[in-house]
Amino acid sequence: MEQAAVVVGVGPGLGASLVRKLADEAFTVVAVGRHASALEVFEGHANAGRIVLTDCDATVPEEIQQVFDGIEDQYGPLKVAVFNAGAYERGTVVETEAADFERCWRVGCFAGFLTGRAAARVMLQHDEDHKGTILFTGATASLRGGPGYVNLASPKFALRALAQSMARELGPQGIHVAHVIIDGGIRSPRYEELLGELGPDALMEPEAIADTYFALHQQHRSTWTQELDLRPWVEKF
Amino acid sequence: MEQAAVVVGVGPGLGASLVRKLADEAFTVVAVGRHASALEVFEGHANAGRIVLTDCDATVPEEIQQVFDGIEDQYGPLKVAVFNAGAYERGTVVETEAADFERCWRVGCFAGFLTGRAAARVMLQHDEDHKGTILFTGATASLRGGPGYVNLASPKFALRALAQSMARELGPQGIHVAHVIIDGGIRSPRYEELLGELGPDALMEPEAIADTYFALHQQHRSTWTQELDLRPWVEKF
Amino acid sequence: MEQAAVVVGVGPGLGASLVRKLADEAFTVVAVGRHASALEVFEGHANAGRIVLTDCDATVPEEIQQVFDGIEDQYGPLKVAVFNAGAYERGTVVETEAADFERCWRVGCFAGFLTGRAAARVMLQHDEDHKGTILFTGATASLRGGPGYVNLASPKFALRALAQSMARELGPQGIHVAHVIIDGGIRSPRYEELLGELGPDALMEPEAIADTYFALHQQHRSTWTQELDLRPWVEKF
Amino acid sequence: MEQAAVVVGVGPGLGASLVRKLADEAFTVVAVGRHASALEVFEGHANAGRIVLTDCDATVPEEIQQVFDGIEDQYGPLKVAVFNAGAYERGTVVETEAADFERCWRVGCFAGFLTGRAAARVMLQHDEDHKGTILFTGATASLRGGPGYVNLASPKFALRALAQSMARELGPQGIHVAHVIIDGGIRSPRYEELLGELGPDALMEPEAIADTYFALHQQHRSTWTQELDLRPWVEKF
Repeated sequence: MEQAAVVVGVGPGLGASLVRKLADEAFTVVAVGRHASALEVFEGHANAGRIVLTDCDATVPEEIQQVFDGIEDQYGPLKVAVFNAGAYERGTVVETEAADFERCWRVGCFAGFLTGRAAARVMLQHDEDHKGTILFTGATASLRGGPGYVNLASPKFALRALAQSMARELGPQGIHVAHVIIDGGIRSPRYEELLGELGPDALMEPEAIADTYFALHQQHRSTWTQELDLRPWVEKF
Repeated sequence: MEQAAVVVGVGPGLGASLVRKLADEAFTVVAVGRHASALEVFEGHANAGRIVLTDCDATVPEEIQQVFDGIEDQYGPLKVAVFNAGAYERGTVVETEAADFERCWRVGCFAGFLTGRAAARVMLQHDEDHKGTILFTGATASLRGGPGYVNLASPKFALRALAQSMARELGPQGIHVAHVIIDGGIRSPRYEELLGELGPDALMEPEAIADTYFALHQQHRSTWTQELDLRPWVEKF
Repeated sequence: MEQAAVVVGVGPGLGASLVRKLADEAFTVVAVGRHASALEVFEGHANAGRIVLTDCDATVPEEIQQVFDGIEDQYGPLKVAVFNAGAYERGTVVETEAADFERCWRVGCFAGFLTGRAAARVMLQHDEDHKGTILFTGATASLRGGPGYVNLASPKFALRALAQSMARELGPQGIHVAHVIIDGGIRSPRYEELLGELGPDALMEPEAIADTYFALHQQHRSTWTQELDLRPWVEKF
Repeated sequence: MEQAAVVVGVGPGLGASLVRKLADEAFTVVAVGRHASALEVFEGHANAGRIVLTDCDATVPEEIQQVFDGIEDQYGPLKVAVFNAGAYERGTVVETEAADFERCWRVGCFAGFLTGRAAARVMLQHDEDHKGTILFTGATASLRGGPGYVNLASPKFALRALAQSMARELGPQGIHVAHVIIDGGIRSPRYEELLGELGPDALMEPEAIADTYFALHQQHRSTWTQELDLRPWVEKF
């Protein structure tokens, strides 16, 4: 049977790998980003035919709602939704503009709320024991507010609370909600130059991360993970 | 020497006790709330003369800025600022309105950012070793997102991240930033009817909480607390 | 190539499932328990031929050392070691006997130190990028000391610290160390009678847990998990 | 009325300051250490007359029991007990001797269990609402197992679990149990040479720490702290 997945926050690193992984696992994947033109990373991928690029501002309730409206009619039951978006500008609290603080929360938490809520509303109508899986991407800053990182940490903490509340509310209704703490740099064109300096496998392979996300979806409902961390072997943490 | 304090979020429970405590310790206290009329709780208090009621929407950057502009010219050096506001509506994630989710963040976290930032900007200009103290009120929901509590937990997590980032940024500049986790019900008119049922001292005495807040301000800078919890003796936690 | 694994703490629930899973994945599994006679749970299992029952008191340094001495000569490179033992007696702190407090630490933490240290010493001599995986079984009590649970929580906290220190020390040397928090009841003969009462899948399936343990061993070294939790879908947590 | 206190773990830094503080607050203080001769730090202190030096190995159940047997007959009601002992040897897990791992647990956790249990048994016989206060000294390593710190972290985690279990068990019976996380270096003769290098107040003043311990004892039972951290203003944490 055809199944659908949604990934919100699709850049060239983890987001794109999540989309490819789900397409390879035979899902029709709605890949939501702000700049669909940048989504050319999927060109030539074997299962690119299963990837549906969608340009949408995930911080706008109506836009994110449209992504989920009618999704099952078009692509089959929605079984996986991943929220992988985030914005961040480094700076001290004293120098942070109120508009930036708000924008980082809108992208990093509010959009996650809109995505998670929309996905849950669709999945709750399923009949299966395991109605679907909703995954959130966290970071080191989900656990610790460091100096200069307030615009990252405050939304990431807020998103983690959302994931916990959703897990406790929706787990007993058959929806698996999990939060993945990415504790390291992900390999991407922009980090590639660091590779030699850091040594082999010092940057997280986005395909390997995507494998772990998918393994969460495959867990039996008697044995669900709510939170796990991921980091490279060399990481001092 | 005259010293000033600001308390944002002044209701009949903890907020009012914090204001009274600071007035009793000889601070001129700017008490910021949305309904100054409700601030009659200070009438008749021995040091009510040191309390300055201020009607302000702490979620509006310009309004909160006005509270701090010129505060030192009027009332002396600002040595203590407390952010004690919050809003919350219980409900499941699936039923939560986007506007409510946003409003609870605005009151519970964004206003805290505006308050903390404004206080820090003023305090950083002081010459003393300990330039000032900024205190944030947390809750059980600062550590745990429970079902039905997303509108409380998500802003409270976000506020805790803010407090941590501020502590790590501002501590080495001489400002003490601490976060107090209130893990229980505070005695207030609305809870009074529960008193008999729960047994003696089962609701937290707001005056006792205010004593602990003030003790944080009095700590020597070699020995600052960033976070502590408070709960009644009977609490199961 | 033949590969070896060790599982310390083999009862009829999770321990036996871990042994079976590793045998099914073509490991020769040294199953360490105190009562080898109870290990008849493996009789008739398809890959029982790969299971080596070993009677050993894991709290005695010399006994646990013997398990690892010469293991690679006999069974091939040791790639996985699991510490799954524990002892516990419920009671208040005031009534707990010193000898019981010590015994629970010996079984729940000291034996874990002996097992982890012995496994690491063997694995460090490997040449591969990923020299081996050492897994520790935690519990809800690894994160929270509850009333009546001091004999469970104190050793479990201590074991978690061991796992963290080992991960940070051995990760950069190519050994993956992870800690799994089991937050619920595991299906076993002794819990079976509860099944009807709790509803379907309310007890964790030990085979499903074992799958997650093995998935940790399969993670790429750029993307290792240090800690994850597992609980049933219905769990309130 | 005369009141008694016990401090287990009395070195020249924090332990001695805790003893002096309690003596200054009019307690008769039983100061328990292994080398009573080293306790000359109290000579000349104004209230040295209230300090009772006791040579005792706190890891031996009978010895610690003797400290508490008859304490109230001699010195009045026991209202405060502090466990401040610890031992630690730095090293990797792979190189750590089993005997050292055990010894560090005996000093850092088992002695804490013996002390806390003995104090609770005495205090539970009091009639007051607040029957007494039991305080445990933690460290950064209570929250995080770092590489090379297994001998510190594993007992400190175990001690924290003990403190939590005791708080949840004994709080509702009128005993305040708290855990203080010391997150920095404490000023002592052995650290003094670092002072110039680190800058003013970069080492924690033991008198200031002792003030915070005593403030915990003074909290109203409607508003008890279970855990707080302490660190110098300059600390990066």
